[in-house]
Amino acid sequence: MTADSNFSGVLVPVLTPFGSDLMPDSAAFIEHCRWLLAQGADGLAIFGTTGEANSLSVEEKIDLLDALIDGGVPANRLIPGTGMCALTDTVRLTTHATKQGCGGVLMLPPFYYKGVSDEGLYAGFSEVIERVGDARLRVYLYHIPPVSQVPISLNLIDRLIASYPDVVVGLKDSSGEWSNTRAVLQRFPGFITFAGSEVFLLDTLRHGGAGCITATGNVNPGGIRKVYEQWGQPQADALQARITEIRNVIQAYPMIPALKTIVSNFYDDPKWLTVRPPLRCLDNTQSQALMDEMGALAFSMDSNTACVAAS
Amino acid sequence: MTADSNFSGVLVPVLTPFGSDLMPDSAAFIEHCRWLLAQGADGLAIFGTTGEANSLSVEEKIDLLDALIDGGVPANRLIPGTGMCALTDTVRLTTHATKQGCGGVLMLPPFYYKGVSDEGLYAGFSEVIERVGDARLRVYLYHIPPVSQVPISLNLIDRLIASYPDVVVGLKDSSGEWSNTRAVLQRFPGFITFAGSEVFLLDTLRHGGAGCITATGNVNPGGIRKVYEQWGQPQADALQARITEIRNVIQAYPMIPALKTIVSNFYDDPKWLTVRPPLRCLDNTQSQALMDEMGALAFSMDSNTACVAAS
Repeated sequence: MTADSNFSGVLVPVLTPFGSDLMPDSAAFIEHCRWLLAQGADGLAIFGTTGEANSLSVEEKIDLLDALIDGGVPANRLIPGTGMCALTDTVRLTTHATKQGCGGVLMLPPFYYKGVSDEGLYAGFSEVIERVGDARLRVYLYHIPPVSQVPISLNLIDRLIASYPDVVVGLKDSSGEWSNTRAVLQRFPGFITFAGSEVFLLDTLRHGGAGCITATGNVNPGGIRKVYEQWGQPQADALQARITEIRNVIQAYPMIPALKTIVSNFYDDPKWLTVRPPLRCLDNTQSQALMDEMGALAFSMDSNTACVAAS
Repeated sequence: MTADSNFSGVLVPVLTPFGSDLMPDSAAFIEHCRWLLAQGADGLAIFGTTGEANSLSVEEKIDLLDALIDGGVPANRLIPGTGMCALTDTVRLTTHATKQGCGGVLMLPPFYYKGVSDEGLYAGFSEVIERVGDARLRVYLYHIPPVSQVPISLNLIDRLIASYPDVVVGLKDSSGEWSNTRAVLQRFPGFITFAGSEVFLLDTLRHGGAGCITATGNVNPGGIRKVYEQWGQPQADALQARITEIRNVIQAYPMIPALKTIVSNFYDDPKWLTVRPPLRCLDNTQSQALMDEMGALAFSMDSNTACVAAS
């Protein structure tokens, strides 16, 4: 594996837009992906939790991925989520993403059964890697116990790295627990570790981490990337405080509909408000309150564009 | 809806056999389904938690369902699990099962996102019912919070029944909490409510419930059906105590591999031991201990066949 095939920096788990029929809108998806890259996003973690990917079928994900690449988004900047409950689904989407040249995949463990053993999870990841059987495959493990309820333990990481050192190259830690991210960074130096929230970006970078993959990157990519660019400089803590302040406002609301509200306002396109069940849109009162709070922070989605472009 | 289209009695969430390549073995699946019906099972809840259905792709489930019906198993005795995370997957499998003449479907809520609202879950079920758009559809809700982590509340049931009285006709309660089953039975008389374990079978029947849908029905269908047949008679409590005793031995082990061990012994076919990751087989020590314990109970899978056949 060459170093330049690795991800680092600020990766965005891209929101998925739906039409009024709840079907994915590939044109709006491509537009937003292009905008994120133009804002400085280092990679696009499409089909993540934020992207409502588990509310999409495998076919819908394959079609969206192909549309994105056909639409000119570079495959090597994509790190799609490909881990599902069913072994065969995970193999199918991972195979497709790898053949399409994606820079990596972000893989949930099979998440229906709870309380499963590390041995069982190891067998799951191992089966996928063996069945995909492609030397280009790069797997980033996706640890998000608050949602998946199936954690990826340090011992599981250890075992996977030992067996597949060129394939299992990194992890996104969405546990929300800095102590876990720090433990991963300390135990596995060189493992490409991302915080799952920009709240931990500076701490992650200071401990040797690669960056963050964060939902709010959909609306504040420039601001978050400033922290990544300037993390070794005196102003880093102030920049971190600013992005944490913005994050804290947003995450007081249900995250995905809140982000879609902000994006819908930005593009002036109500289509972006739509979520698939079981999620629900914000109601009018919530939407107004959120936009008022963001306004009070003098926030706008492209307020950091010039800065990034100049850097 | 006519009364004879409803399920009642002992329904079995059928185990799914896999070859050494982890692919479903439809011939062994059909054989076991036929055996269960011959033992007195009133219905086959294929593609449930016990059947490792969420470890199968939609295509694998459609192929198995079609093979079962082509193999002569009556479609109206089938109540496949069709609820998945993705709206479009759930619609696809539910549509197919309904067109194939299945007696009903057992539907999980979308289970990736946690802490979702009843309104969001209502929207999910409602979208599926509207999109399937088939007057023959009968939905049994699947409440299994220990695994899905997404409960089906009494208020959600209430709202679904109010909107779709001819479609949303019943529920399987695998909460493991008798207080919840009792509350459903009390609040919704006429709603076709199944206990998710035979441990609660007699209590469920005495409170107006329809029966049980239970994993251990794979190995003890005759014994469990005896309780259903004789629940109003003096010996009912003794029969219940016997099936509870057997259940308690099995559920001290990981349930699905334990059941597969017993079934593998019965058919003398090691294929039945195989599980898909993230589950794991019992090890040799566990298998031996389980079979010894079952032997000490003088248990055999077909020990109640004669009784059932004579009844």
